Amino acid sequence: MSRGKTKLAMIPTIETIPLQQLASGDHLSLQLYKFIGSRSGKKVYIQSNLHGGELTGNAVIHRLMEWLTTLESDRLMGEIWLVPVCNPVGVNIRSHHYASGRFDPYSGHNWNRIFWEYEEKFSEIKAFAQSQLALDPQTIQANFRQRIQAAFLALKPTIDSAAGVPFHEKYRYLLQSLCLDADYVLDLHTSSDRGITYVYYFPNRQESAALLQLEAGILLDEYDGEAFDEAFIKPWLALEEAFGELEKPIRFDVEAYTLELGAGMQIDSEAVDRGISGIQTYLITQGILDLPNFPCSAYPPMRFSPRSKARRYYAPRGGIVQWRVPLGTTVQAGDDLYQLLIFNKAEKLPGVQTVQADRSGQVFDVAISQAVSEGEYVLGVLED
Amino acid sequence: MSRGKTKLAMIPTIETIPLQQLASGDHLSLQLYKFIGSRSGKKVYIQSNLHGGELTGNAVIHRLMEWLTTLESDRLMGEIWLVPVCNPVGVNIRSHHYASGRFDPYSGHNWNRIFWEYEEKFSEIKAFAQSQLALDPQTIQANFRQRIQAAFLALKPTIDSAAGVPFHEKYRYLLQSLCLDADYVLDLHTSSDRGITYVYYFPNRQESAALLQLEAGILLDEYDGEAFDEAFIKPWLALEEAFGELEKPIRFDVEAYTLELGAGMQIDSEAVDRGISGIQTYLITQGILDLPNFPCSAYPPMRFSPRSKARRYYAPRGGIVQWRVPLGTTVQAGDDLYQLLIFNKAEKLPGVQTVQADRSGQVFDVAISQAVSEGEYVLGVLED
Amino acid sequence: MSRGKTKLAMIPTIETIPLQQLASGDHLSLQLYKFIGSRSGKKVYIQSNLHGGELTGNAVIHRLMEWLTTLESDRLMGEIWLVPVCNPVGVNIRSHHYASGRFDPYSGHNWNRIFWEYEEKFSEIKAFAQSQLALDPQTIQANFRQRIQAAFLALKPTIDSAAGVPFHEKYRYLLQSLCLDADYVLDLHTSSDRGITYVYYFPNRQESAALLQLEAGILLDEYDGEAFDEAFIKPWLALEEAFGELEKPIRFDVEAYTLELGAGMQIDSEAVDRGISGIQTYLITQGILDLPNFPCSAYPPMRFSPRSKARRYYAPRGGIVQWRVPLGTTVQAGDDLYQLLIFNKAEKLPGVQTVQADRSGQVFDVAISQAVSEGEYVLGVLED
Amino acid sequence: MSRGKTKLAMIPTIETIPLQQLASGDHLSLQLYKFIGSRSGKKVYIQSNLHGGELTGNAVIHRLMEWLTTLESDRLMGEIWLVPVCNPVGVNIRSHHYASGRFDPYSGHNWNRIFWEYEEKFSEIKAFAQSQLALDPQTIQANFRQRIQAAFLALKPTIDSAAGVPFHEKYRYLLQSLCLDADYVLDLHTSSDRGITYVYYFPNRQESAALLQLEAGILLDEYDGEAFDEAFIKPWLALEEAFGELEKPIRFDVEAYTLELGAGMQIDSEAVDRGISGIQTYLITQGILDLPNFPCSAYPPMRFSPRSKARRYYAPRGGIVQWRVPLGTTVQAGDDLYQLLIFNKAEKLPGVQTVQADRSGQVFDVAISQAVSEGEYVLGVLED
Repeated sequence: MSRGKTKLAMIPTIETIPLQQLASGDHLSLQLYKFIGSRSGKKVYIQSNLHGGELTGNAVIHRLMEWLTTLESDRLMGEIWLVPVCNPVGVNIRSHHYASGRFDPYSGHNWNRIFWEYEEKFSEIKAFAQSQLALDPQTIQANFRQRIQAAFLALKPTIDSAAGVPFHEKYRYLLQSLCLDADYVLDLHTSSDRGITYVYYFPNRQESAALLQLEAGILLDEYDGEAFDEAFIKPWLALEEAFGELEKPIRFDVEAYTLELGAGMQIDSEAVDRGISGIQTYLITQGILDLPNFPCSAYPPMRFSPRSKARRYYAPRGGIVQWRVPLGTTVQAGDDLYQLLIFNKAEKLPGVQTVQADRSGQVFDVAISQAVSEGEYVLGVLED
Repeated sequence: MSRGKTKLAMIPTIETIPLQQLASGDHLSLQLYKFIGSRSGKKVYIQSNLHGGELTGNAVIHRLMEWLTTLESDRLMGEIWLVPVCNPVGVNIRSHHYASGRFDPYSGHNWNRIFWEYEEKFSEIKAFAQSQLALDPQTIQANFRQRIQAAFLALKPTIDSAAGVPFHEKYRYLLQSLCLDADYVLDLHTSSDRGITYVYYFPNRQESAALLQLEAGILLDEYDGEAFDEAFIKPWLALEEAFGELEKPIRFDVEAYTLELGAGMQIDSEAVDRGISGIQTYLITQGILDLPNFPCSAYPPMRFSPRSKARRYYAPRGGIVQWRVPLGTTVQAGDDLYQLLIFNKAEKLPGVQTVQADRSGQVFDVAISQAVSEGEYVLGVLED
Repeated sequence: MSRGKTKLAMIPTIETIPLQQLASGDHLSLQLYKFIGSRSGKKVYIQSNLHGGELTGNAVIHRLMEWLTTLESDRLMGEIWLVPVCNPVGVNIRSHHYASGRFDPYSGHNWNRIFWEYEEKFSEIKAFAQSQLALDPQTIQANFRQRIQAAFLALKPTIDSAAGVPFHEKYRYLLQSLCLDADYVLDLHTSSDRGITYVYYFPNRQESAALLQLEAGILLDEYDGEAFDEAFIKPWLALEEAFGELEKPIRFDVEAYTLELGAGMQIDSEAVDRGISGIQTYLITQGILDLPNFPCSAYPPMRFSPRSKARRYYAPRGGIVQWRVPLGTTVQAGDDLYQLLIFNKAEKLPGVQTVQADRSGQVFDVAISQAVSEGEYVLGVLED
Repeated sequence: MSRGKTKLAMIPTIETIPLQQLASGDHLSLQLYKFIGSRSGKKVYIQSNLHGGELTGNAVIHRLMEWLTTLESDRLMGEIWLVPVCNPVGVNIRSHHYASGRFDPYSGHNWNRIFWEYEEKFSEIKAFAQSQLALDPQTIQANFRQRIQAAFLALKPTIDSAAGVPFHEKYRYLLQSLCLDADYVLDLHTSSDRGITYVYYFPNRQESAALLQLEAGILLDEYDGEAFDEAFIKPWLALEEAFGELEKPIRFDVEAYTLELGAGMQIDSEAVDRGISGIQTYLITQGILDLPNFPCSAYPPMRFSPRSKARRYYAPRGGIVQWRVPLGTTVQAGDDLYQLLIFNKAEKLPGVQTVQADRSGQVFDVAISQAVSEGEYVLGVLED
């Protein structure tokens, strides 16, 4: 061991954060792992398993932790905060052998449609932008963040009151308090069913999204509302829009992505590889990690589409999907997508109905279950 | 009985409407009962049991049908359309012995947050209002209804396509196709838990809401979005607002109410009596039924509050609610509301925490279950 | 402190026992409260909330703990072990607002049909009895308990193996390890629905069961298999039978009861009072507590019936129970029990079907939900 | 068309049988397809999808129906009764996108542990056998069947009474009334998770089981009780045992099998091929179909094991299975089976635990979900 070895591999700071006391008196907690560099820089926040059955991100974060602990702390400029299994309530839900925790069985809330959104009228955001025209982007960013944080902190007394708040309001407060001052936010999901790897990204972030090197990128040009990534980035997009209208375009160095890493309920090793590799490339290229010689992987270029091109097919009648095209298939308009075996209770022989693709594209997701009542999901095509 | 007995008691037209083919090949249907008067008039649409465990409205509609079939058809001016058990998917859901069908177990969708909303920019609605300034309200109403209907009909090709739509889109299309041209819409609900009787109403409809004679009326001054009553009435409220801004205020004769008829999973006979009695009074006073001598019941006057006064209390810790004030109690600020027995897994004796009322009011709803994890619902106070 | 005041109120020993690590990494535990007398005597084991929605026993145990801590330790002859919220997995399960944890959502196992049963051929038990004919009952009891314990301990290596066992096998091992050497076992339940208070008891224990002073006692003359009380007492009943056949009848001083304390999901204060009062009387009369002047309550005498007289009614068709007799009603054969409002999808008016009592008796339980598919539970009559 | 072509392809008789009226007024039904040969012979009964998520058998029955309709009716000696989607209640259950209908969400009953068992004391069966010693097997079979049927028919009045029975008693009565007089019963299942193809068979039926040509056969030397196949065959096995004890061994020509056709929620085409091919071979070899030149497929010989060799592994701690051996792998004792990524809430880094095989064998089933709380299922090994 040479005497030069004064640089040490990083050890994360680990914090256990109480989340919920259950009726039984037991507690659920979150655990936060912070890697803090010896050089200052950006803050990256990465969580996984917000939907209970979406497991792959946990393995990705574990691999990332193993890797970071092999690096010396001066390689890290800034901080990387990691929260695997970030939704214990959802992760532990079962329905028979299935991890059905996409929504809260108590309220029906989709765990990724509960987040607090900074709400300020666009006119006020524009007035704020107007007031900042003379400042540099970093200062503007700090000033706007302060406004968001102040609005967020105003929620605290209600959350702590004896009258209480619904659990999802306490939960989101806790998660958002960890990421609100981050620069880059990565939320690791998978399909509820079986999907390819892709990333949801926001306007003016395609170039950075491409660093994640997944199979596809889907631009969120329509919002669902109250999703984790949206809640984080929407105020910044509004501010960018305001500066645009004021003819001083700024693209703030703030990013949020939802990574979709393949199939639900599984740990697919290929998806783990894609996930870890993409995140490494992202962290290095974005200047979080100073690893000039790291062999970034070279996957084929991503396919980018707006969300409106991600088209879902639903069963036109009830039955059993007895055949369907494999995940990943490229289809032309008119190609067979799937075949439904339809039983009846009308004293007739069963029938078969074949559904064709309306437009060409790639099958990017398929339902895990092939029993479908009318209107249940069958597959999705990322249309050309 | 005079030989002039040409007047006959009413018989409804009954239509069975296919709703969903299940994976097993069986079908679920809706059944619509239409009472059609021999004199022309308004159309009233009444449904019940949109949430699977909210049963009382079915008994109310049954009582209403029994009553209407004793009346002669010239007593009815217009039409009354009735759809009891209007959500078979929700009604038949079970979790152990409990009727848990408030949301779709497939998607988590709250069955009363799925409805199609007519979306037109306020500026366009105002332009439409401008174009109608010279016309009488009835004509304006007919013209605007046509715009809504045209937008609604444009959804049909997608719903019927082989590519399909999610079930809730087909379902809402069917329900809304029945009520879109109605004048008065009544949606009969109950608490998921145990509540008093009350009605949700919209701006400028308090006088009509009072005809329903329930214990309380709550003004929907904040919207949840995509609820059945909102989806029906919001375009009309926007149009009224537009005329208001044009200084030609009009209050269209269009109404929608959600009646909350007491406890979930039960048929409480008192709530049935309140419900049928209120609807009778409403139908007669609104000029749908010509029954001048009908003995309308005289309940105490309703208490009206804006929705922001309906305050819910949630458990600040996990435990068992071992005592709480009875439903209907009037409380003062500082009065005890409930007592939580809190177990722990830290080798300590159990503790007890008492929660007090923040403000005075009436306990209008209490949770059916007294086991609460942190953030679960305990009770609601309609604050003064 | 006066020198006479050497007697101290009891403080229980409290042990937190790890039960299950969840997928999220969090843990569920049991907590055991032991009151240990300064005089030797019997061991009493009391648990509550084995089914997730059956809450009342928790309040009863809490009241019992509060009371015991006011007594001096020389009042207690032996030990009282208490395990409230004894099934955290079940207690925390939710389906909408309902506490549906009667069975495991992962496996469907009814939490009270999972217990390990000591299995020895009756011929062997009889041979054992033969070998003990010369001994006194206490010695025989100790010898037989040793056989049971040896068989139980043989399960341990499998439970601790890396190959693992299903959760219910680990769980039952833990619970049964706490009670296997007890003399008296009380398992505090309630209805899943709404019921009167009653106790399930076993042959030759009616006199002791009567001490519990509930509204009724039901003799378990038929077994379900693998219930907590049965698993504890069945070997002893078999041994008693063997001695009977050998014409040396012995009634061992071993007892097990399941108390049914009213409605599910609630804490009914009257049921709590019955429960605590009955248990106090039981403990004093059985010689566990030396409180000669304690004012034992005087409830009306219990009604005893064999289980075969507890008759359940199930919906003969699907519909809504729009009326039913109140809980506790005494009915004669032919009396109306309930009325079903039956909707159809065949273009007909709804129908009403009234169901009458087949035999006279008392309505001892009613379903919490009045929506019933064909074959769902409506109510139970304890027949004369 | 030659005049000789008087033989016609078979058309099944199709019967729709009402099963359950739902609370909403809708009905679920079964549909029975009967192929009746022009020559007399045995009765074969085949059903599929008794557990709601086990779909493959439906495609197998559909293929079988398509094939039988190509045959002339004189090829069929006897009758083949088919009931696909035989459990509509189970098939239509959803929990998020998953078909979780293995057990009844109302009661927790596993749908394949509800069946009526003919219960007669072995001493009485032996007395019956004694009385039949002089008769030929066919006559004995007819006589014994009559005893079973008489006991079964005695259940009918209770099922039809206004007091009703729980749904599962009505349901089993209907299914068992269809198969009770069959000679051969095939119940088509799959794993809840992902499995190889195999068949459960009973003593003295290995040679016939081998005709089904699946990957493995598991001898049911231990019973679960109340399963569909067991309920059918157990009285016959008892009668065979009785004759054995009387030293007149008879093997009745009565068989029942549960086929496990691969993965749950899917239609795996290879499993469909195995299933249809095995059933064709079975029907021809057993003399139901007279097709001497049919090219029976030649799969590798089946591996036979007693049920005690089918060993399941359960998670020793909670975590995420981040790696496991593929389905079908042959392992040696000590080989790695799977690796658990274990998170904690104790401020420590996550850990990894690898579980090894206790004994050599083949991995015949793996859990569909890789998130496991302690005691949840991971995989099964068919041990050597």
